[in-house]
Amino acid sequence: MTLKPATALAHPNIAFIKYWGNRDNDLRLPSNSSISMNLDGLFTRTTVTFSASFKTDSLRIGKKSIPGSGLGRVNDILDLVRELAGISEPAEVVSENNFPSSAGVASSAAAFAALALAASHAAGVTLTEHELSRLARRGSGSACRSIPGGFVEWHAGIEEADSFATSIAPPEHWDLVDCVAIVSAVRKKTGSTEGHAVAATSPLQAARVADAPRRLDLVRQAVLERDFDTLATVAELDSDMMHAIMMTSNPGLFYWQPASITIMESVRDWRASGIPVFYTVDAGPNIHVICPQQQAQSVERRVRELPGVNDVLVANSGGPAQIVS
Amino acid sequence: MTLKPATALAHPNIAFIKYWGNRDNDLRLPSNSSISMNLDGLFTRTTVTFSASFKTDSLRIGKKSIPGSGLGRVNDILDLVRELAGISEPAEVVSENNFPSSAGVASSAAAFAALALAASHAAGVTLTEHELSRLARRGSGSACRSIPGGFVEWHAGIEEADSFATSIAPPEHWDLVDCVAIVSAVRKKTGSTEGHAVAATSPLQAARVADAPRRLDLVRQAVLERDFDTLATVAELDSDMMHAIMMTSNPGLFYWQPASITIMESVRDWRASGIPVFYTVDAGPNIHVICPQQQAQSVERRVRELPGVNDVLVANSGGPAQIVS
Repeated sequence: MTLKPATALAHPNIAFIKYWGNRDNDLRLPSNSSISMNLDGLFTRTTVTFSASFKTDSLRIGKKSIPGSGLGRVNDILDLVRELAGISEPAEVVSENNFPSSAGVASSAAAFAALALAASHAAGVTLTEHELSRLARRGSGSACRSIPGGFVEWHAGIEEADSFATSIAPPEHWDLVDCVAIVSAVRKKTGSTEGHAVAATSPLQAARVADAPRRLDLVRQAVLERDFDTLATVAELDSDMMHAIMMTSNPGLFYWQPASITIMESVRDWRASGIPVFYTVDAGPNIHVICPQQQAQSVERRVRELPGVNDVLVANSGGPAQIVS
Repeated sequence: MTLKPATALAHPNIAFIKYWGNRDNDLRLPSNSSISMNLDGLFTRTTVTFSASFKTDSLRIGKKSIPGSGLGRVNDILDLVRELAGISEPAEVVSENNFPSSAGVASSAAAFAALALAASHAAGVTLTEHELSRLARRGSGSACRSIPGGFVEWHAGIEEADSFATSIAPPEHWDLVDCVAIVSAVRKKTGSTEGHAVAATSPLQAARVADAPRRLDLVRQAVLERDFDTLATVAELDSDMMHAIMMTSNPGLFYWQPASITIMESVRDWRASGIPVFYTVDAGPNIHVICPQQQAQSVERRVRELPGVNDVLVANSGGPAQIVS
């Protein structure tokens, strides 16, 4: 079998119904299903080359080289792909993001979606979208949502084989825009992998999970019907519920900065005054401010004017992960 | 029966295990028991005079007069007292706080404790501490905790007659100090009465209530053993859990300001560095920073230096409500 390099591109995604906590930490089987939108314009581009001429796996992200022993989760995905392909060649992985890592946008979803696609292609195995989504999930749970395009639901499933994401609607279904308000964090915060592992220590997590099907139904239907008001109300509630779990877990995880509070309060005020806009917040201080395309310019300008906002990244709804060469 | 004016004094209190949500809104029967400390130095002083010479009930708070029809909850307490005493005379209520209302410290607990005590005394009825606590509760739930002295537990009870507060330990049992960091709020927020009424709309409230006995046991024991570390950990968790409920109720109630985040994060950092200190936050933006007397001066100075802190009120643990003339 000929092993040719393959390059894949994938977008990060922003969840309207959040993933927080696992039923199985090793397999990254989530406690609840989740719904997200891919972010066009932002992407990770990853090239994977398998070759017997390499002594060991290697990874380069932008200009930073990471030696074989420090590859961690990337290694795990490469091993899974080699097992599927029945090969044993080491791999060279070269990856770059088109957004600054200092932007604080979670890049692991795009990174592991691009890696899963490029690596399987480079290893000569053809995977279905479901299989690719499961493979990406093993690297970073939310990466499974960056495999299909547009508006996506990750079905929690009951075992490894049925925990993957599918598209609810293509990107062109709804012209939503994510204005990501970049807020500087004073310190490095706990990463998502560690966070998921302590979610169950919150006395409130079981109640959040138990109520998830209700929120999922509301958001799925809101996406299908382009019902902005319902999406806004439920997505903000869901984001606040995830942060409620984070803050009340052991150890408590606090991601909101003073500027985050200012932005969230402003967004609620804007919506109360009639502007279609809502916020959602991942495991970091940045605030994703979502609105229809028609309001995007005005909303971006308003967000830029708020104190503590260093920059605003603007993204429309994006397509699926794809092979680019 | 001779009706003589009576003057009572009561302190506000700060809860380590919070009261949020009612089983019965009219009777103010809470969803869970709570534990608090009275705040010495801060007080409401209230004089009640029943007299047939008054045409109607009247209320003066500081220099502000409120006519009969606007007395609301004060009227309800006066009616309950008249019923107990078998009298029908209108009352004049004159009340003052020794702390500025702009300080944003919840004054209703001290106010209704002082009112219950002064009014019953002025009406010539002698009530037990339990009965006084129940009476104060009818005006403002947490007022029942300002009747007994020192460290106090409000037993949720199962009906009107057994929902009252008792002392766990007298004020001198533990030399804790509350440094109340006053933060300016941009707007008027939802009051506690309205907040309690929507607590059950949070998908997380039932879980908070179900876990309350565990937190109460830990805090009661920590008070009895003067175990600061346990008190700090559980009281911060409990405060964060209450705000989690507030934020995820319908409508969502958001009391934290940007400066609140700065203070809470600083307090966590200080404790991580070995200083015995913790925060707790009521239905407002102010942060109560609690520490032993030995650290109080240093902690007060640190709090004053934080951005967004307008003032700091300092209070030791305080005694019971009492008749002063």
